[in-house]
Amino acid sequence: MPLDFTAIGRTTEPMPISWNSDRAIIYALGVGAGQEDPLKELEFTTENSEGHPQQVLPTFAVMMGAGAQRGPGINYGDFDRSKLLHGQQAIRLHRPIPVEGEGLQSSRLTGIYDKGSGALVTMTSTITDLDGNVIVESANGSFIRGEGGFGGDGGPSESWDLPDRPADHVVRQQTRTDQALIYRMSGDRNPLHNDPVFAAKGGFGVPILHGLCSFGFVGRAILHAACDSDVTRFKAMSVRFSKPVLPGQALTTHMWVEGERVLFRVLVDDAVVLDRGVAEVTGA
Amino acid sequence: MPLDFTAIGRTTEPMPISWNSDRAIIYALGVGAGQEDPLKELEFTTENSEGHPQQVLPTFAVMMGAGAQRGPGINYGDFDRSKLLHGQQAIRLHRPIPVEGEGLQSSRLTGIYDKGSGALVTMTSTITDLDGNVIVESANGSFIRGEGGFGGDGGPSESWDLPDRPADHVVRQQTRTDQALIYRMSGDRNPLHNDPVFAAKGGFGVPILHGLCSFGFVGRAILHAACDSDVTRFKAMSVRFSKPVLPGQALTTHMWVEGERVLFRVLVDDAVVLDRGVAEVTGA
Repeated sequence: MPLDFTAIGRTTEPMPISWNSDRAIIYALGVGAGQEDPLKELEFTTENSEGHPQQVLPTFAVMMGAGAQRGPGINYGDFDRSKLLHGQQAIRLHRPIPVEGEGLQSSRLTGIYDKGSGALVTMTSTITDLDGNVIVESANGSFIRGEGGFGGDGGPSESWDLPDRPADHVVRQQTRTDQALIYRMSGDRNPLHNDPVFAAKGGFGVPILHGLCSFGFVGRAILHAACDSDVTRFKAMSVRFSKPVLPGQALTTHMWVEGERVLFRVLVDDAVVLDRGVAEVTGA
Repeated sequence: MPLDFTAIGRTTEPMPISWNSDRAIIYALGVGAGQEDPLKELEFTTENSEGHPQQVLPTFAVMMGAGAQRGPGINYGDFDRSKLLHGQQAIRLHRPIPVEGEGLQSSRLTGIYDKGSGALVTMTSTITDLDGNVIVESANGSFIRGEGGFGGDGGPSESWDLPDRPADHVVRQQTRTDQALIYRMSGDRNPLHNDPVFAAKGGFGVPILHGLCSFGFVGRAILHAACDSDVTRFKAMSVRFSKPVLPGQALTTHMWVEGERVLFRVLVDDAVVLDRGVAEVTGA
């Protein structure tokens, strides 16, 4: 049996995690901080620049626990990892991420949905500090191509409509052809993103960019355009990954600000690559 | 007293060092591996690409011991760190650097020379494995601007003449404006390379590139052009740093192959930035 539906509802024991200044910097460089202008975003890319005390990008939330000694995870089946794509991702920050720290992470498998061309496996995860205060809640969906069509529920769907006006902010970000090589040092070593032989097994002509790398670029775009670069104003972000991005492509994020919600979608040329985006921000 | 001449001849106790796959990869990315084509140099930039077992760039020799718990070093005086530049660097590999390992590093202060506009402090260093087998010998010179003119010896000078013919190889490498941000994650956190306020104290309009970052770029150029990308053929490399390089400038390395010696110099536009270069390589 490729997918194990009995895994739904399973929860991991809280696993100890830790993160530090260097990992936050390498993450920031991986999602393009400083690429456009190395003297901007020094608070995210360096720990010793005068007038720029180090801060952590909110989207580092997805990588805080990477590299930790893993406890037992949730095994939901056996499938070809070259067919695995990031399907959706949401994060909610209860406070800005400290530059370094220790915490506990627990995860829960919330559903296995039938999307026709593949299966969507959804998990939620909570990271607390050692006193039990929640730092980040996140939810993600993994899309496993070729594992759909089992006659299951298609999963919940929320309404999402763009306002009928031009976007309030449009930000274009150029990724690099070697973007995945630095991004992967944050912790996701799936060879789909570096090894052309492995990528070919997954049906891709070249290694593709990590979905969460695009997520990080777009998080930076929202932080700067809609939060005036203030991490304390960035509360939440969720998105669907609708099409793989190739390293070297340019991401154009269109944002509509509706009070404390920012609706957004991301295009590469004319194709939507990140869809149904919602961020939550607070006023200055 | 800014410089302590009694330090000449002092030797450190052997200090334990260690290095690993991740550090070798971050170093390789810092010196531009994969920037031109992310599918080339996968043996240096990744640990899991089929057909490309991980290898270590020979010039990682200069960073193997970085980040280690430091034993007592050699204090040779008190001076303004914003005035400190890399003056010269030599490495000699006794064997290819393993992907990960532990070793011992000892250093010796060999001289403090009067170069007029500054002082040149020279050190040698040896890294062995835990069985005492030498992996790398290196020598470096730190140039401290403004500390010269004390009436001391100018230091040894070796003859170095280029053959009277066009270079056998000319390799152009584009550095990036944010090159120093990733290079510094290898271990050299001198803010001269990231903080514009600190750089201004040193008299620079913008943060400059690490001399050893240029050294690594040029080492890659020599490895690929003169060693057919075979790390076992790369034996030694030495160079003088004659002019600071700014992030974003293009390095053009001119190489003359003379048997097992490669003479080289490196230009940015018409200015020589790395001079008196000698590499030693062995035949295929």
